[in-house]
Amino acid sequence: MNPHADRRNRLVATLQDREFAGAFITNLVNVRYLTGFTGSNGALWIAADGSGVFLTDGRYKDQAAVEVEGVEHEITREPVRQAATRMTAGRWAVETHTMSVDAHAALAKGAPGASLVSLQRRVEQLREVKDDTEIEALRRACDVSTRALDGLIAGPLVGRSEREIARDLENRMFDEGAEAIGFDTILASGPNSAIPHHSPTNRVVETGDLLKIDFGARVDGYHADCTRTFTIGKAADWQREIYAAVQTAQAAGLDDLTEGRPLSDPWQSVTKVLDDAGWLESFTTGLGHGVGLEIHEDPFIGARALGRIQSRTVVTMEPGIYLPGRGGVRIEDTVVVTSGAPEVLTTMTKDLLELA
Amino acid sequence: MNPHADRRNRLVATLQDREFAGAFITNLVNVRYLTGFTGSNGALWIAADGSGVFLTDGRYKDQAAVEVEGVEHEITREPVRQAATRMTAGRWAVETHTMSVDAHAALAKGAPGASLVSLQRRVEQLREVKDDTEIEALRRACDVSTRALDGLIAGPLVGRSEREIARDLENRMFDEGAEAIGFDTILASGPNSAIPHHSPTNRVVETGDLLKIDFGARVDGYHADCTRTFTIGKAADWQREIYAAVQTAQAAGLDDLTEGRPLSDPWQSVTKVLDDAGWLESFTTGLGHGVGLEIHEDPFIGARALGRIQSRTVVTMEPGIYLPGRGGVRIEDTVVVTSGAPEVLTTMTKDLLELA
Repeated sequence: MNPHADRRNRLVATLQDREFAGAFITNLVNVRYLTGFTGSNGALWIAADGSGVFLTDGRYKDQAAVEVEGVEHEITREPVRQAATRMTAGRWAVETHTMSVDAHAALAKGAPGASLVSLQRRVEQLREVKDDTEIEALRRACDVSTRALDGLIAGPLVGRSEREIARDLENRMFDEGAEAIGFDTILASGPNSAIPHHSPTNRVVETGDLLKIDFGARVDGYHADCTRTFTIGKAADWQREIYAAVQTAQAAGLDDLTEGRPLSDPWQSVTKVLDDAGWLESFTTGLGHGVGLEIHEDPFIGARALGRIQSRTVVTMEPGIYLPGRGGVRIEDTVVVTSGAPEVLTTMTKDLLELA
Repeated sequence: MNPHADRRNRLVATLQDREFAGAFITNLVNVRYLTGFTGSNGALWIAADGSGVFLTDGRYKDQAAVEVEGVEHEITREPVRQAATRMTAGRWAVETHTMSVDAHAALAKGAPGASLVSLQRRVEQLREVKDDTEIEALRRACDVSTRALDGLIAGPLVGRSEREIARDLENRMFDEGAEAIGFDTILASGPNSAIPHHSPTNRVVETGDLLKIDFGARVDGYHADCTRTFTIGKAADWQREIYAAVQTAQAAGLDDLTEGRPLSDPWQSVTKVLDDAGWLESFTTGLGHGVGLEIHEDPFIGARALGRIQSRTVVTMEPGIYLPGRGGVRIEDTVVVTSGAPEVLTTMTKDLLELA
């Protein structure tokens, strides 16, 4: 069975469980997940009996014919109005977390017999557990990213600007097979490495810097997310110290990423390591998040995360230490959760490398 | 006065005219327009007396301190809830075309004394008429794009793939000063040039092709949008014929882009030229659109466009002829509307160039 039909079947099971007549899916990422459609305008009407209609405009008629199987196609400039005409009496689920107030009002007006109820983040929840097609795409995105970084760090780096090195890395990702850059590359040198989400500048990399690179390729719509931190030249003692603390903390976090464990466990373990080493107050960002069709998606890993870790979720683990004015270290992997140790997809080394 | 304060003043005048107590601006592009904030999460509460509060989360505290002047700052993980506490009795304007149903419900719950009314696309309308800061940014984005294309077409092009040439062009935009690529480059050769919105493939450019390139750089948040079409090698008669028709049509459309003229006039003129030449049915896309902080924004130019052309709007003019299986031609400029002839910002030549 094609993966999209399988995903729709899982949604349909939810609709039946909750006694919905059907759903109108408008969050474009969810539409892609359920249909395979990669364009910029599309929606999915789907009934609890499993029948579906994919709605898009004329620009995407041919593309939809290639990409979207197993549902009827309707080409329209007014998807909301057209979907409304298909909503008979009953409870219809809509994505109120992303649907605009105006679209919701138009739908209610066009479907007076329907009762519109929030689907909440049900499709996002389905997306948490990846199928084989998705894991394969994530694996390839991470492989591309790994090869690109390995090429980059062969150097030279000293004397080149953050911007220049970031573009070099991005070009290498394309060369290795990326369809796109997954997100704006964070490439931060020297004191800039203390800024968690730094945009590359014209600062020139020099000996003595920490160099933090948070980047990833996109392949078939799926994102890699990886951070490595290096020293330029021989590492100073303080650099070694914070690197070791982050490395130990990251390993501890990964150890907790096992099916069935509470989603908050990695937070406990990581913060314990950092606290014991005296660096907890310098860890100021999130710890991890799901990654897939979006670079940040459910589940989010943190102190207040509820629920348990599920097998086949793909998440990041990314503790860091940030010392304003001096520098920072972050180590981040993208991993697949299993019943044992997680499978790390971002396979580049985590040993501290001293680059030139 | 800084441009953002001036823009907020124009919004405040609207709020007073319509007897709103204030507005809660959540469309991120509109927030940037009114505050200068370039991050990914921010909102603006603004009262009819002109007082304002910019709301963002802790990640953007420092960035907001640098970018956002003249309003109070509030750092919060719950901007909707915080804004609600500031909404006393009265009519409050919200952006129902982009605000989610859930955010709207949370706002209504948090501000029980407020009556929430749609602001409609009022800020988008303000954005149509560009101030000096904006026109300067658009001019630079177009200059960067022009220089990048001039460099690219010096060649060689034959024997290289669409993907490779597109990346070359994008790298040249960065070299010329782009902060980002404004949108996915459309670079289409041979029969692919007949596809209006084609993604670059591994097809290799060869003699006899039409080569259509729709691209643009982003500078300070503002987008250039330009299309040029070339022949590879000596132009065939049919290529010359459709090129001449598009060139004449585009000039006719530009001639109508004058302050005070109906927004539908360029459509009439362009389609008359194409109809007289016998190619009207091969023009299958939109004719033009506003361009600024978004690549496509108000106003849209077409047969059904209402209203009149305003001075200092920045719009595209982009007729084309698309012959499936053979090839297509589009010529597109980004221009500033004046009381006379529009100022063309994309200054590269529109003569038919035969490249190698």
